[in-house]
Amino acid sequence: MDNSMKIKNLVGQRFKERPADCVMDSHALMVRGGYMKYVGNGIFSEFPILRRITTKIENIIREEMNAIDGQEVLFPVVMPADLWEESGRYESIGDELVRFEDRNHSKLVLGMTHEEAAVQLVREYGQSYQQYPFMIYQIQRKFRDEARPRAGMIRVREFTMKDAYSFHTSQEDLEVYYQKCYDAYNRIFQRAGVPEVVTVASDSGMMGGSVSHEYMLLNEVGEDSIVLCDACDYRANMEAAENIVENSSSGNPESLECVETPGCKTIEDVCAFLKSDVIASCKAVVYQKNADDTYVVAFVRGDYEVNETKLRNLVGEEIHPAEITADAPLVAGYIGPYQISDQVIYYVDLSLRGIDSLVAGANKEGYHYTGLNLERDLKNVTYVDIAKVKEGNICPCCGKPAITIKRGIEVGNIFQLGTKYTKAMKMQYVDQEGNKHYPIMGCYGIGVGRLAASICEAKHDDYGPIWPISIAPWEVHLCCLRPDDEETKKLADDFYEKLQSNKVEVIYDDREGIRPGEMFADADLLGVPIRVVVSPRNLKENKIEITTRDKSVKTSVALSEGLQYILDLKETMYRELEK
Amino acid sequence: MDNSMKIKNLVGQRFKERPADCVMDSHALMVRGGYMKYVGNGIFSEFPILRRITTKIENIIREEMNAIDGQEVLFPVVMPADLWEESGRYESIGDELVRFEDRNHSKLVLGMTHEEAAVQLVREYGQSYQQYPFMIYQIQRKFRDEARPRAGMIRVREFTMKDAYSFHTSQEDLEVYYQKCYDAYNRIFQRAGVPEVVTVASDSGMMGGSVSHEYMLLNEVGEDSIVLCDACDYRANMEAAENIVENSSSGNPESLECVETPGCKTIEDVCAFLKSDVIASCKAVVYQKNADDTYVVAFVRGDYEVNETKLRNLVGEEIHPAEITADAPLVAGYIGPYQISDQVIYYVDLSLRGIDSLVAGANKEGYHYTGLNLERDLKNVTYVDIAKVKEGNICPCCGKPAITIKRGIEVGNIFQLGTKYTKAMKMQYVDQEGNKHYPIMGCYGIGVGRLAASICEAKHDDYGPIWPISIAPWEVHLCCLRPDDEETKKLADDFYEKLQSNKVEVIYDDREGIRPGEMFADADLLGVPIRVVVSPRNLKENKIEITTRDKSVKTSVALSEGLQYILDLKETMYRELEK
Repeated sequence: MDNSMKIKNLVGQRFKERPADCVMDSHALMVRGGYMKYVGNGIFSEFPILRRITTKIENIIREEMNAIDGQEVLFPVVMPADLWEESGRYESIGDELVRFEDRNHSKLVLGMTHEEAAVQLVREYGQSYQQYPFMIYQIQRKFRDEARPRAGMIRVREFTMKDAYSFHTSQEDLEVYYQKCYDAYNRIFQRAGVPEVVTVASDSGMMGGSVSHEYMLLNEVGEDSIVLCDACDYRANMEAAENIVENSSSGNPESLECVETPGCKTIEDVCAFLKSDVIASCKAVVYQKNADDTYVVAFVRGDYEVNETKLRNLVGEEIHPAEITADAPLVAGYIGPYQISDQVIYYVDLSLRGIDSLVAGANKEGYHYTGLNLERDLKNVTYVDIAKVKEGNICPCCGKPAITIKRGIEVGNIFQLGTKYTKAMKMQYVDQEGNKHYPIMGCYGIGVGRLAASICEAKHDDYGPIWPISIAPWEVHLCCLRPDDEETKKLADDFYEKLQSNKVEVIYDDREGIRPGEMFADADLLGVPIRVVVSPRNLKENKIEITTRDKSVKTSVALSEGLQYILDLKETMYRELEK
Repeated sequence: MDNSMKIKNLVGQRFKERPADCVMDSHALMVRGGYMKYVGNGIFSEFPILRRITTKIENIIREEMNAIDGQEVLFPVVMPADLWEESGRYESIGDELVRFEDRNHSKLVLGMTHEEAAVQLVREYGQSYQQYPFMIYQIQRKFRDEARPRAGMIRVREFTMKDAYSFHTSQEDLEVYYQKCYDAYNRIFQRAGVPEVVTVASDSGMMGGSVSHEYMLLNEVGEDSIVLCDACDYRANMEAAENIVENSSSGNPESLECVETPGCKTIEDVCAFLKSDVIASCKAVVYQKNADDTYVVAFVRGDYEVNETKLRNLVGEEIHPAEITADAPLVAGYIGPYQISDQVIYYVDLSLRGIDSLVAGANKEGYHYTGLNLERDLKNVTYVDIAKVKEGNICPCCGKPAITIKRGIEVGNIFQLGTKYTKAMKMQYVDQEGNKHYPIMGCYGIGVGRLAASICEAKHDDYGPIWPISIAPWEVHLCCLRPDDEETKKLADDFYEKLQSNKVEVIYDDREGIRPGEMFADADLLGVPIRVVVSPRNLKENKIEITTRDKSVKTSVALSEGLQYILDLKETMYRELEK
C-alpha cells in the first residue's frame, strides 16, 4: 500500500461536531473523521482511511501468524447448518447465531466463529500423527447477532476477524504452541502501538475447553471488568476471577429465630430494620433456566454480587434473571436457604462460609431468620464460587489482600479447546502404534476493526486519533499553507514528490481557500504521526516545520535537511514499536 | 507474502484419482491438488495453496485499481433490507438474493453486489461537483444463491469479488473513466497470465444501464456463448449479440390455406409431413410472466432458437418457460401468429421478415396454415430481435457473413450504470451554477476465485495446473531426491536457504521415503513454474536440474551458476507477463 494521495481526493467527509449518539470518543472521532459510516444496527462500511488502517493491522497480524508457522486459509461466511449440528452448537448457541434458509429450504448459518469449518477442512488431512502440529488461520468477515451493538467498531454485529486454529497430538504440544501464540499476540499489539495490552485469564464460555486468556487494553470506558493484583502478576477477567473471602467466626453462634420483618424487601432494608451488619446477611438472587424455567437461586453474602458466568458454568446451561410469578415456589423478598422449596435449585457462595449467625429470608411473606448458621442448620451445605470479586479482596495467587479492579476492552483471545470439536466431529489421527486419537485444538482470535477502534480509544486527544505509525493511514501529512503562492506551491509539490520517491506514504493537503486552522483540524482528525508544514513564512527562512501528532516533536528544519529529518523520524518511530 | 515452506508441512492432501463429480479439469485438479474443499452446495473453503494464489490475484487487482485512482473501502456482507428497498431491487431480484431476519425480526440481505452500499456510503460526500469524479472499490465476500452452482470455483454461491464503483458528473466523464478501467482490466488479465482474455459487448441484465462489457477467457468448456466475427473485431456475448437475417423473397406468395397436420407436434414433424423447408416455417416458443402467468409467445424462423435475455428485456419483466394448461388460450403444438388469441402477448422475430410463404400453426388442434404471408395476413406486424445468432450469420459490424460462435468463461465485467441507483436512492450533487443533478455511475467487477479457476482451466495439462509465475503459490519448487543421502540433503538445504535469502518463494520437498515419481506428481499438481532438482546423480557432475512446469526449459546447470540461472529465469517470466 504505497499510494500517497491528495486530501482533496480522499473519499469521506469530516464533521466539526461530535455526533450526539456516540458514547465513546473513538466512535465519535472515527465518525467525525470520515473513517466509517453507519449502515444498519451494528453494521458499518469502512471509508478509505479506515480501510488503510485495517489493512495495515491485517498485515501485521498476517506476518506474525506466518512467523509461528501459521498457514492462511479461507473459510466461508455462509455454512450449511449440518456442520454446526455436528458440533452441537446449532442447538446450543442462542440468537447470536444467524440461521436462515436458502432457495431450496436448506438450512444455513452465518459464521460467527469457525471451529467447525476448521475441523471440516483438515479432517482428512490430519489422519496421521506425522502431520502434527499445524496451525491454519484466516482473516475474514463474521456476523454475530449481538443483542446490543454499541460503541462504534467496538461491539458490532459484522466484523473482520483473524481466527486461527491449531491441532496437536498432546496437551504438552498444545501448551508449547499456546505459549508461542501468546508471544506472537504480544508482538502484534506491540507492533500495532499498544504494548500496554495485558493478558488476563478468562472464561471459555461457549467455546469449550479450559485454559484461556484475553488480551485487554486497559481503558476506563471498556466494557470488561478486569481483576488485578497490586502485589503480584495475577490478572483475570471478572467472569473468570476466583473470589476468596475469609469470614472470622466468634465461635459463638446465636440460635435460629424467625422474626417479623414487615415491608423489608431488600437485604439493605432488612439489615437496617434489624440493625444487623450487611456482611452477616444472606442475599438471594434468582434466575431461571432458559430451557424449562426451573428456578435457580444464588445465595451470596449481602455485600457481594453474583458472577453470572460462574453460575452459568455451574448450572451447565443457559439461565436468565427470574420472573417470580404468583404460583412460584418462592416468596420474593423473603428467600433464604433454610427450608427452601425442593422445587428450586440453589447454590451457596463461598462468601457465606464461616459466618456464625446470618440474617436470611424465611421463605415466608414478611419474615426473616436471624441466627442462621449454615453448617448447623442446613444438611450438607456445599460452598461454590459464584460471586464477583471486590476491590481489596485476597489475591488467589499471592494471598495478599491487594486486588484492584479496572476496566478494559478485549482486543484478542486465545483458548485451549481440548478435544471438544474433534470428538464431536469425529476427527481422528493414527499414532505411531496404529491407535486412534482425537487431536487437541487451540484457537486464537483478534478482531481487526475492534483493535483499530481500541487503539483510537487509547491514543487520542480532543482533536483526533494519534495513530501509531505502523497502522496510521499515512506516515506523513504534508500541509501547503497558501497554495495560491506559486513558490510555496512549487516547493510543496516538489517535497511531495521527494517523499514519495523515498517510499514515504504521504497525504498531501494542497487545497486552496482553506484556512490553516481548518487544515490542521483535518490533520488532527486523520491522526497521521508526522506533520510537515510548508508556508511562505517558513520559506522566507528556507525552512519547513515538522511536528508530530503526539506533540513530542515541534521544530523547524532547513529545507535541505527536511527529507532526511523525516526519514530519520519515521525510522525512529518504527523502531520504537519494534522494541 | 515471502514465506517459503516445506511441502511436508503444507496443510491439504493430494489425491491420485480424478474425483468422479468434477466436470471441468480445473475443478478436478484443484480438488486433487489440495487447493479447495467442498463445504456445502456452491460453498468451498480454500486450503493454503489456493489462498496464496487468490491473495496474489487480489494484490494485482489492488495495484491496478489504485493505479487508476481507486480508493479501497469495505462494505458489509450483511445489509439491512431497507437499503435494497430504496433501489427497488429488494423486490425485483429473485431468489438469488438471500433475505432473512435478525433476532429482532429486522429484515436483512446478504450482499451479492454493492451498488446500494456504494451510493449509501458516498451520498453525503458527493454533494458537490468538486468531489467528482471518484472511484471506490472493495475486495470482499459475496453470496448469491445460484440455482445451479457448478464447476468448482467457476460458479459458486459464496465468492470473493473485487467490485468497484465510479461516480461522474457527465456521461463523457464516465466514458473516459470507463476506458481507463477497460485498460486496467486488460492489464490485470495480462499480469495474471491470461492476456488472451477478450472483451465482448454484453447485456446489462439486472444491473441497469446500457453499455457494458464482459471479459471472456475463451475456453471450450465455458458456460457462455460468444459471438465473434472472423472478418472484423466484432465480439458480443450471445445474450447481447444482434442477429441479422436476410430472407430472399420470390415475389410470388402462395395463398393462405389451412391444412390438416395430424400428430405433427414439432416444427420438424410439420415440415417433414408437408415436405416444406424448415427455413420457411414459423416456430412458436411459449413463456409465461413470473408475476401473473400471462402467456408470452416468441415466433422465430424454424431453424432459430429464442434468445431469452433479449426476450426478457423486451417484455420488461421476469419470464419462465410456459406450462400450457388445458384451459390455456393456446393449443400446444399448433400455435401460430395468425388469429392467435388476444389473451396472449406475442413477438415476431426478425428472422421471419421477408418470407413469402410460411408454414405456421393454425391455433387449432391438428391444423397448420401454409402460404402464410406475415405482411399480408397480419395487421401491423412488428419485427423484433429475439433469436440467437448462428454460425455464418451476417456481422452487425462489418456486414460480412463471417460470424463464428465460441465458448468462454466470464472473468470480469464493466457496466455503465447511468443514474439508476443515484436516482432511486436520491443521491445528488450541486453543480457550479447551484443546480442539482444525479451523479452517473459505472461499476466494475472481477471474481477472484473464478479467475483463479479459469486460469487453471486455460493453463493445465493432464498432470496439473501450469500457473503463471505472478499468481503461482510459489516461484520455485525445490525437490531433494534422496534426502537420506547426507551430502545431497545438505546441498539442497543450503540451496533452499540461498533461494530464500534472494527473495525467491520456494516450496521445498525434502520428504524421505518418497519415490521421485511421487515427488514429481505432487510438483505437477502444485504447478509451480520453476522446478529445481537436487539429486546424488546430478551432484556427481556438480550440477542441478532446472525445468519449467510448461516444459519450455529443461536443463542442467553447474551448481555454482544455479542461483543466478534461477533468478534470471524468474525475472524473464515476470517480464513476459508485463509485456
